[in-house]
Amino acid sequence: MVISRRLSKRGAVDPFIVMDVMEAARAQEAQGGDVIHMEVGQPATPAPAPALEAATRAMAAGPLGYTVALGLPELRERIARLYREWYGLDIPAERVVVTAGSSAGFLLAFLALFDSGDRVATVSPGYPSYRNILHALDIETASIQGAAENGWRPQPAEVRAAGRIDGLLVASPSNPTGAMLDRAALVELTAVAREAGAAFISDEIYHGLTYGGRAVSALEVADEAIVINSFSKYFSMTGWRIGWMVVPPELVRPIERLAQNFFICPPHVSQVAALAALDAAEECESRLAVYARNREILLEELPKAGFDRLAPCEGAFYLYAEIDHLAADSRDFTARMLAEAGVAATPGHDFDPVRGAGTVRFSFARSTDDMIEGARRLREWRGGSIRPSRTAAQT
Amino acid sequence: MVISRRLSKRGAVDPFIVMDVMEAARAQEAQGGDVIHMEVGQPATPAPAPALEAATRAMAAGPLGYTVALGLPELRERIARLYREWYGLDIPAERVVVTAGSSAGFLLAFLALFDSGDRVATVSPGYPSYRNILHALDIETASIQGAAENGWRPQPAEVRAAGRIDGLLVASPSNPTGAMLDRAALVELTAVAREAGAAFISDEIYHGLTYGGRAVSALEVADEAIVINSFSKYFSMTGWRIGWMVVPPELVRPIERLAQNFFICPPHVSQVAALAALDAAEECESRLAVYARNREILLEELPKAGFDRLAPCEGAFYLYAEIDHLAADSRDFTARMLAEAGVAATPGHDFDPVRGAGTVRFSFARSTDDMIEGARRLREWRGGSIRPSRTAAQT
Repeated sequence: MVISRRLSKRGAVDPFIVMDVMEAARAQEAQGGDVIHMEVGQPATPAPAPALEAATRAMAAGPLGYTVALGLPELRERIARLYREWYGLDIPAERVVVTAGSSAGFLLAFLALFDSGDRVATVSPGYPSYRNILHALDIETASIQGAAENGWRPQPAEVRAAGRIDGLLVASPSNPTGAMLDRAALVELTAVAREAGAAFISDEIYHGLTYGGRAVSALEVADEAIVINSFSKYFSMTGWRIGWMVVPPELVRPIERLAQNFFICPPHVSQVAALAALDAAEECESRLAVYARNREILLEELPKAGFDRLAPCEGAFYLYAEIDHLAADSRDFTARMLAEAGVAATPGHDFDPVRGAGTVRFSFARSTDDMIEGARRLREWRGGSIRPSRTAAQT
Repeated sequence: MVISRRLSKRGAVDPFIVMDVMEAARAQEAQGGDVIHMEVGQPATPAPAPALEAATRAMAAGPLGYTVALGLPELRERIARLYREWYGLDIPAERVVVTAGSSAGFLLAFLALFDSGDRVATVSPGYPSYRNILHALDIETASIQGAAENGWRPQPAEVRAAGRIDGLLVASPSNPTGAMLDRAALVELTAVAREAGAAFISDEIYHGLTYGGRAVSALEVADEAIVINSFSKYFSMTGWRIGWMVVPPELVRPIERLAQNFFICPPHVSQVAALAALDAAEECESRLAVYARNREILLEELPKAGFDRLAPCEGAFYLYAEIDHLAADSRDFTARMLAEAGVAATPGHDFDPVRGAGTVRFSFARSTDDMIEGARRLREWRGGSIRPSRTAAQT
């Protein structure tokens, strides 16, 4: 009997190295170890209380069948109103597409915009799934190497130097750097995309989580931008898999047809919960206050542990640290950090395949107590007072 | 200012014609019309009570963050046990992948198995999203034209005649025909796939909803089959977007990496609900009894209204009727049926682009009262006693 053992080439996407860290942390905890989790990219808090109440009510009220593919009309209306509240923008609800998390938003945007062989510029360091999804769809990527001295922000000249592109994808605030693109930067970058005839895709899933001024939406400077957002971060609803896009009018119908076929609809109960979450501003803001406090603690404490070259962190809940003066490879370094200090953090490889050996991402999405304890452990570890492995740790 | 107006070719997938019916039905109801819905492909019932209780408990218990990409380990274990309970098969939980509905299962399977330019055979009439997803991924399709005299079931000779294929996708019970592939048919079809070196993908989302013997899983005859299933139909959880796959061992890791990038994880609350649904056999079986009663009523009544050429309907909750002796085009015919009789049904075009003008799909997923009333209206409409438009209706 011949058994077919087919595997596609497109399916051979990179594994996430952070998964090794998470698995090692889990194993360490299973053996009674106590781990401070600074590797996770999600809030430790549940969905806002009104969201949970709305979901519970909806479950009791009747069947949660399919919704229309673009999402519940009242949710699309409410998201449109958010653009007035947050940015003073008038976005018609017809241009809002509810999606199964930002993941679905990227897939739908890429499919609707790009054909096989098209070329999309993404910024490094950045969220690894951009390039992995693009590659699986046979779309080429051009990697813009952000520079630490620019706060890792992509520069117009760097985009121009990337050659022919059909799309430009940026994130502000950025994961992992927390760097934000201000209005001037967005004006310049959208202009470069226009010159190139390239679609401009703006990942805004960390909007709301900022520590100076508010984040600027690409829609404020370029009405043709494709914006992708999510309820995962500011609204603390990661596992609910619910997000949205704002797209130009001519993309609505193609995306609707793609969404019907690829998703049928976003999870119904999550749509109901998300609608209520949009009116839970107080709860969301109180969580932001926790992140702000955590950030201050780490900005104060991490340099004392030798992590003194930090990305801007104007938004999101990450501190991206250059560690090439501390270790040769962040993968070994974070493995030792976990084993010796009981602190889990993410090596930079996932975000920056080229230079990630020299960087580490710390997340401050967990409790303030965890941050204080994590910082203490890191200080002692780096100071050599936790374990006798100081020399190894300071390779 | 040059605005880029990009639209991909791959995004130009076919619209669903059923959407026109649903929109017309909605408009008719908005004007006070009373519509019997025989167009919808989903149960009218909610998720089983234990599923709703488990979801409510989980929401109160703590944050519903990301799960691992392949799904909660206890859910994978429980699904593996279902294969013992339903089919007497020993499937290791490691081969079970929890997905965001069967939609996600198809995407993951296609990406993991096929590259651009590969060719996959699908059966017509069949679920339209198979070919739409495949086309959007630049995978070619070969359409096997099932024959009414074979109960629309694909025949091995038809598959061989389709030429070079890299995959063969079948569904049993089939949407829209309700036809099932018995063990002998599956043995033959999996053998043809093996001869061709093609992956065998078996859509089993209507398993559990059968009216004679139980459905046979492709895994009973071919361990290398890729099986896609869902909690949507038998477990009545459409809007929860939760399903699963069973895949050969060598596909687990590629699918895990794809799922991490394309989905992060299936909706957490839906996974919790699905786990509880698996122990709600009594509730699910009582709903099956309603479908069985509805099916009997329609099998008795539809022929009296002229719908006397019906597909087998051994499973699922559809009756697929040939209507070319009643009308020239099922699209006009169903539009008139809705306007004149107040019964919504789906024209065959979505399921069979070539021959769908001659077929209509009736769904019997709603209440028995609706079926009785729907059948009465159709009988009267076809008999000419509802409206004076008898001549038009019998073109």
